[in-house]
Amino acid sequence: MDFAIKSLGERTVKINEALLDKIEDNYIVSDSRRVLYNTFIDENGLSEESLATNFELAGPRDRLYFDPSKIKSAIVTCGGLCPGLNNVIRSIVMQSWHKYGSRSILGIKYGYNGLNPTKGYYPIELTPEIVRDIHLEGGTILGSSRGGTEDLSIQVNTLQKLGVSILYCIGGDGTLHGAHEISQIAEKIGYKLAVIGVPKTIDNDISYIQRSFGFETAFSTAVASIYAAHIEADGAPNGIGLVKLMGRHSGFIAANAALAMNTVNFLLVPEVRFDLYGPNGFLKHVEDRLQRRGHAVICVAEGAGQELIEKESGQQKKFDASGNAALDDIGLFLKSKITGYFKEKNAEINLKYIDPSYIIRSAPACSNDSIFCTMLGQYAVHAGMAGKTDCVIGQWNNIFIHVPIEMTISKRKTIDSRSPFWRSVLETTGQPASMVNE
Amino acid sequence: MDFAIKSLGERTVKINEALLDKIEDNYIVSDSRRVLYNTFIDENGLSEESLATNFELAGPRDRLYFDPSKIKSAIVTCGGLCPGLNNVIRSIVMQSWHKYGSRSILGIKYGYNGLNPTKGYYPIELTPEIVRDIHLEGGTILGSSRGGTEDLSIQVNTLQKLGVSILYCIGGDGTLHGAHEISQIAEKIGYKLAVIGVPKTIDNDISYIQRSFGFETAFSTAVASIYAAHIEADGAPNGIGLVKLMGRHSGFIAANAALAMNTVNFLLVPEVRFDLYGPNGFLKHVEDRLQRRGHAVICVAEGAGQELIEKESGQQKKFDASGNAALDDIGLFLKSKITGYFKEKNAEINLKYIDPSYIIRSAPACSNDSIFCTMLGQYAVHAGMAGKTDCVIGQWNNIFIHVPIEMTISKRKTIDSRSPFWRSVLETTGQPASMVNE
Amino acid sequence: MDFAIKSLGERTVKINEALLDKIEDNYIVSDSRRVLYNTFIDENGLSEESLATNFELAGPRDRLYFDPSKIKSAIVTCGGLCPGLNNVIRSIVMQSWHKYGSRSILGIKYGYNGLNPTKGYYPIELTPEIVRDIHLEGGTILGSSRGGTEDLSIQVNTLQKLGVSILYCIGGDGTLHGAHEISQIAEKIGYKLAVIGVPKTIDNDISYIQRSFGFETAFSTAVASIYAAHIEADGAPNGIGLVKLMGRHSGFIAANAALAMNTVNFLLVPEVRFDLYGPNGFLKHVEDRLQRRGHAVICVAEGAGQELIEKESGQQKKFDASGNAALDDIGLFLKSKITGYFKEKNAEINLKYIDPSYIIRSAPACSNDSIFCTMLGQYAVHAGMAGKTDCVIGQWNNIFIHVPIEMTISKRKTIDSRSPFWRSVLETTGQPASMVNE
Amino acid sequence: MDFAIKSLGERTVKINEALLDKIEDNYIVSDSRRVLYNTFIDENGLSEESLATNFELAGPRDRLYFDPSKIKSAIVTCGGLCPGLNNVIRSIVMQSWHKYGSRSILGIKYGYNGLNPTKGYYPIELTPEIVRDIHLEGGTILGSSRGGTEDLSIQVNTLQKLGVSILYCIGGDGTLHGAHEISQIAEKIGYKLAVIGVPKTIDNDISYIQRSFGFETAFSTAVASIYAAHIEADGAPNGIGLVKLMGRHSGFIAANAALAMNTVNFLLVPEVRFDLYGPNGFLKHVEDRLQRRGHAVICVAEGAGQELIEKESGQQKKFDASGNAALDDIGLFLKSKITGYFKEKNAEINLKYIDPSYIIRSAPACSNDSIFCTMLGQYAVHAGMAGKTDCVIGQWNNIFIHVPIEMTISKRKTIDSRSPFWRSVLETTGQPASMVNE
Repeated sequence: MDFAIKSLGERTVKINEALLDKIEDNYIVSDSRRVLYNTFIDENGLSEESLATNFELAGPRDRLYFDPSKIKSAIVTCGGLCPGLNNVIRSIVMQSWHKYGSRSILGIKYGYNGLNPTKGYYPIELTPEIVRDIHLEGGTILGSSRGGTEDLSIQVNTLQKLGVSILYCIGGDGTLHGAHEISQIAEKIGYKLAVIGVPKTIDNDISYIQRSFGFETAFSTAVASIYAAHIEADGAPNGIGLVKLMGRHSGFIAANAALAMNTVNFLLVPEVRFDLYGPNGFLKHVEDRLQRRGHAVICVAEGAGQELIEKESGQQKKFDASGNAALDDIGLFLKSKITGYFKEKNAEINLKYIDPSYIIRSAPACSNDSIFCTMLGQYAVHAGMAGKTDCVIGQWNNIFIHVPIEMTISKRKTIDSRSPFWRSVLETTGQPASMVNE
Repeated sequence: MDFAIKSLGERTVKINEALLDKIEDNYIVSDSRRVLYNTFIDENGLSEESLATNFELAGPRDRLYFDPSKIKSAIVTCGGLCPGLNNVIRSIVMQSWHKYGSRSILGIKYGYNGLNPTKGYYPIELTPEIVRDIHLEGGTILGSSRGGTEDLSIQVNTLQKLGVSILYCIGGDGTLHGAHEISQIAEKIGYKLAVIGVPKTIDNDISYIQRSFGFETAFSTAVASIYAAHIEADGAPNGIGLVKLMGRHSGFIAANAALAMNTVNFLLVPEVRFDLYGPNGFLKHVEDRLQRRGHAVICVAEGAGQELIEKESGQQKKFDASGNAALDDIGLFLKSKITGYFKEKNAEINLKYIDPSYIIRSAPACSNDSIFCTMLGQYAVHAGMAGKTDCVIGQWNNIFIHVPIEMTISKRKTIDSRSPFWRSVLETTGQPASMVNE
Repeated sequence: MDFAIKSLGERTVKINEALLDKIEDNYIVSDSRRVLYNTFIDENGLSEESLATNFELAGPRDRLYFDPSKIKSAIVTCGGLCPGLNNVIRSIVMQSWHKYGSRSILGIKYGYNGLNPTKGYYPIELTPEIVRDIHLEGGTILGSSRGGTEDLSIQVNTLQKLGVSILYCIGGDGTLHGAHEISQIAEKIGYKLAVIGVPKTIDNDISYIQRSFGFETAFSTAVASIYAAHIEADGAPNGIGLVKLMGRHSGFIAANAALAMNTVNFLLVPEVRFDLYGPNGFLKHVEDRLQRRGHAVICVAEGAGQELIEKESGQQKKFDASGNAALDDIGLFLKSKITGYFKEKNAEINLKYIDPSYIIRSAPACSNDSIFCTMLGQYAVHAGMAGKTDCVIGQWNNIFIHVPIEMTISKRKTIDSRSPFWRSVLETTGQPASMVNE
Repeated sequence: MDFAIKSLGERTVKINEALLDKIEDNYIVSDSRRVLYNTFIDENGLSEESLATNFELAGPRDRLYFDPSKIKSAIVTCGGLCPGLNNVIRSIVMQSWHKYGSRSILGIKYGYNGLNPTKGYYPIELTPEIVRDIHLEGGTILGSSRGGTEDLSIQVNTLQKLGVSILYCIGGDGTLHGAHEISQIAEKIGYKLAVIGVPKTIDNDISYIQRSFGFETAFSTAVASIYAAHIEADGAPNGIGLVKLMGRHSGFIAANAALAMNTVNFLLVPEVRFDLYGPNGFLKHVEDRLQRRGHAVICVAEGAGQELIEKESGQQKKFDASGNAALDDIGLFLKSKITGYFKEKNAEINLKYIDPSYIIRSAPACSNDSIFCTMLGQYAVHAGMAGKTDCVIGQWNNIFIHVPIEMTISKRKTIDSRSPFWRSVLETTGQPASMVNE
């Protein structure tokens, strides 16, 4: 793993000249100040490798690469909506304008497509007046879209024509792939473009990113569905509340919502395999729970149990245009399996199925996410003005850091079923550690 | 229409003796004080018929039929969940206990089934301690269920054995039918049972009931889905947000949610027919809106457009066990029709479908509903203690009244498309007054 | 009482020509369609006087006085903030623009002061784009201020110079006084100005106005303070939670918040006198409650018990610049009296005092208020375009009506301690019907 | 600093025998697995001292000190209310009961006073049934109180008589002092009592505790006050919104609320001195802001500017019974100073003062705090059963750890004005780095 951050070149602009408002010297961060990746230690101390593996701190440098008053920046938001997008946009604009005295910030419409002239979208000028209240609402004022990454030299060309020096890319896995490619193309053609990513993943599944913005809002909003499922389950004879939540590859939203509401009895995530049938299968355990307690609440992440559906249907996995596996609906699948299981036993159950879908991702950022987004935006501008490039703003041990884009997209972050986090889930739900028949 | 309220017999217990806490004389309500049904007047004045059509006021009478300290009451909640159930339960218990000095209040489990001994449910004793905080949560602590009305003489028999003098039935259309039947059976066998209904209809579709509890909470909760739909629609090129809300026969929830959020462009309800295709069809209007504004928000009540689905599928209407028409999913139907329409035209759209389902009905009562439920419970106890029977507590011109159960179940309340209310909907959404091709 | 509504003159513009979107004929309202003020009836039927006392219905007329495409309107918001102001503004703009095709709507800044050129404020042009999202936030985008009513001929002069034909005045008692005066001055000088009031009183204390916008939001928001007071009282030995809420002359906010949360044991309002000391005094009853239950929650409206403070302090009532009586702080007064009372008895209590103040009035409108505001705005435009003047939009028996401004400001609406509403309060709190020593 | 955790003795009970539900081996944590205190590194690597400074990990050990089925635990909540108290109680009960099979858990009433027999409070038995829903509400079902720490041998005596083996102390600075003393007394008399603290500080000001439960809920709730202040300030000519928030010694709540809402222009905290008057004083900066922007929002932590009040009043600091400095009200002080300053200049301002007080601390835990509380409770039980004592459950680098009580009470955690956190505050508010005249 290479933790080194790319730079556009020598930083020659003194920050105090550049800034409209003076930042005290003691706030300046040096490139050599770093934070350890691994902070665990045992009787053997810390290995050489652990010591060598560390992240560069984010924050203002004493010299800038760009003269803020002379350059143009651009912000683009890509992919699905996520709480906090507007907060990050607002923060980048406010920080660029008020702290760095930069007066030209473009908002690119509808993701990377907005940099493709054939699409017919035009960038808008972002000012403090325009972004003043946008953080109070969900969504993104720039609009977003998927794709547009087929031939990114088009986008680089547009950026160069627009005279953009810093590009802030707010998006997920695909977006960061694109951002990495944009920075490579720019480098190849000698175009001095700082590409700063702000990782957006409502599922919290980007590697080396301790926490992603919008994630807390998402699972906090999802809690209402679990509350409803519990009320419904509790209010009917043999009531079963079944909730499907977001989480294609990682069950973090489902797990955190379950931990927050404390009423989930079965949590099913993509990372932990389970059987439907058999003496240790999921359905038997639901049945046991009904007999013991008269009701049950089940929360399932959308990516869970996909292999069960495939096996059942005998179908091959489908892929959508962007190459993502098209998920079969595990919620409806489980609903049908549970209903069938008890019908066969002539047992009356009352199953209520809840799928909050987009309600969760369009919510305005909760307070904690709002703070986080504000800081992400501030650090992104510090990084861009310093001429950092091909990196994202992350957080590790609660410290803001720079992470090379390549690292963040190298693999996906998932729930480790051997971690204390999953142990807490098991302790909270009371579900069996394994629902697989040997 | 017969507005007369049945009575169990002469009221001989003086209220001041019965009540632990004295109620001032000026709070006593006379049977002859009534409120007009029709309050409109024009140049011709008020017709004789209008004058003769009026409701009995609810409230404490100067004499009671029962001696509160000696009788037993029972509360039953039936049908689907609705915000405020716990509030009504709590209010009946508190009023009976603290105001009337009644110490025996039974909670029947799981609806009318809880009065059928073969089901194996047992009533619980309700006390102020038990109900103290239940109004803070959704659902019903008694549990609820549908049905149990096949042979209500079983239930009457159980009530008689339990020694119940007042039965509070909280439920909808079917429940009130049942309550009416229970009161008739009791009358026939000379069992002095006061049956007091508290109408529960989250859809607000019970006749002669100006407003039903939980309805405001329901549409207020639904607003979050419309907010999400708007944010999604606004954030994507040609974004369409499609929300399905409750409302089998009446579109009140959908209409009020749309009026509250002000961002719905098309509201579809069961009461107003629309065409899908053609120059004045719904799809053409959606297309026009997209061309004009780049996004559209659609809100549809679950009972809307059923005839379109039938026509399309050539299927006959299905009915479920309780004789309710099984609705085809208009939300998924529209989603498919809209997608197909634009696919055929090779137009890119981004449709996001939201169905909040049970989230809406399991929410705790909002403040205004909480007040309403508290009062409904108080008036229900006043009515029961006075020996009123076969009636519900309603509200007309903001006055609490007694309505014969038979009247409330005689027909359903629906949106009148010629009313000022629907005019306000049209003014707010800006949708065409008619989407039917001549 | 004169229920007749003033008119600027003959209505000659056909509505279907004026409207961009056709309104169906069946939505047209005639001046002769009216709604009864008194809807109660007893054995004697309805008196002649009752029949003669009725309100004119609001709504679109078949002919307009103004040609909407040619006139200019203006909106002004005055006095203290109230939830829903932005909703009303938005609705007036949307209705004028989209339904009546009117393209010139001015927003007056900071109340009537904004019409006084010496203040240096300038009106802003309001368009659908500008008001699109304002209903999601509290406050008023126009700003508000008190006063500016010293010499209203200045304001009339400004309006005339600006060429304003309809003035929408959103405000309370003082504002409506002003609006009435403005309409009189205009009439005197032959200036055809329609003055339409939208009554704003967070306290819900305007006469002939069944319900005022923002009131429900206010008491719903206040519920959080009562919740907190209860949690605090319940969590400490001899805990007392004391909440002060808005309500200078009318205790509606306090009463409704108390009814909604159900945990208030003592509700004190301006309309109901109480003694502090003596065997039937408030403090003795608090002491009794503590002995019985170990904690107590008290909710007091700011205008309650003023005569107690005066008596105690021997001071004469003070008046502020606008002639309003300067209230002494009943919350802090009670806090001190309660603390002193138990200190004298060497009894440990834990009193927590909560005053949510402006949190309540700056909240965004709740869903129900949002609907109400939308409708108020729509009806205000219907009235203005029809040339109605010197009237407000009100609601009676849930019907939107026109009320002459003079009537609404003739006296204040207060809680009637002999009403069913107050009976419900007593039933809910369990407090004594009287805390006055004979 | 001594990071070593005290232990009651050898752990001899195998966990798998003790637990009703098997915990997988891989979840077992060893005493030797530790986490670094300092995770920063620069060109010189990590110092020996840094390597040696590390925390013991919390979590289940492979052997227990107590046999869970045979012992009795007790939970006590002390001091002021804080969001999440009920969540922690619930989690301890659920974990003890369901995971460790412990059936005797006492709830001590009203803090340490509940262990003093002369007070007349009696412990209650806590079961899963009782605590099932308590996490949905604020406060503590056990009640809380200050003090009771005069002679803790009384409390130890009570605990011994009750046969308590594990005491969970949930409380702040004073409570932890008491817990430490209790563990010392027990040790001295050879009473094998595990004392496990769960640090409670709504102000987030306990050392070595990265994050304290309830803190996020507190500042998130406080955001509503800042929202209100902004709406009020924005809605009036020269509007000033002034909010006072909790924070006696540390301004974390105020700072986080300000960062979350982004509309605060001046944040005043105890850690950063400011002058009122002079060319670089606070009042001058407020004046400048009003001239530039027409309104200003100020947020002040209750402990800020105390020396200004003292200087002004010439009074000596007062102390309350428990030795805490009695704070003078900085909110009212500033209100008066600001008003006076502008009055002298004959400048009209509109100042609205908001003090949400107890609303903030009685709120139910937000989702993220709820998760945190659940985990704290789970780890506390792991620690207690393993015979750890005189320690608290903390979190460092997002890892749950054991911290000796003595360390946590050795000094207070405050905002470092030279930290990136404060830099973010300055960047967000735009206030001067210093408001002190040289």
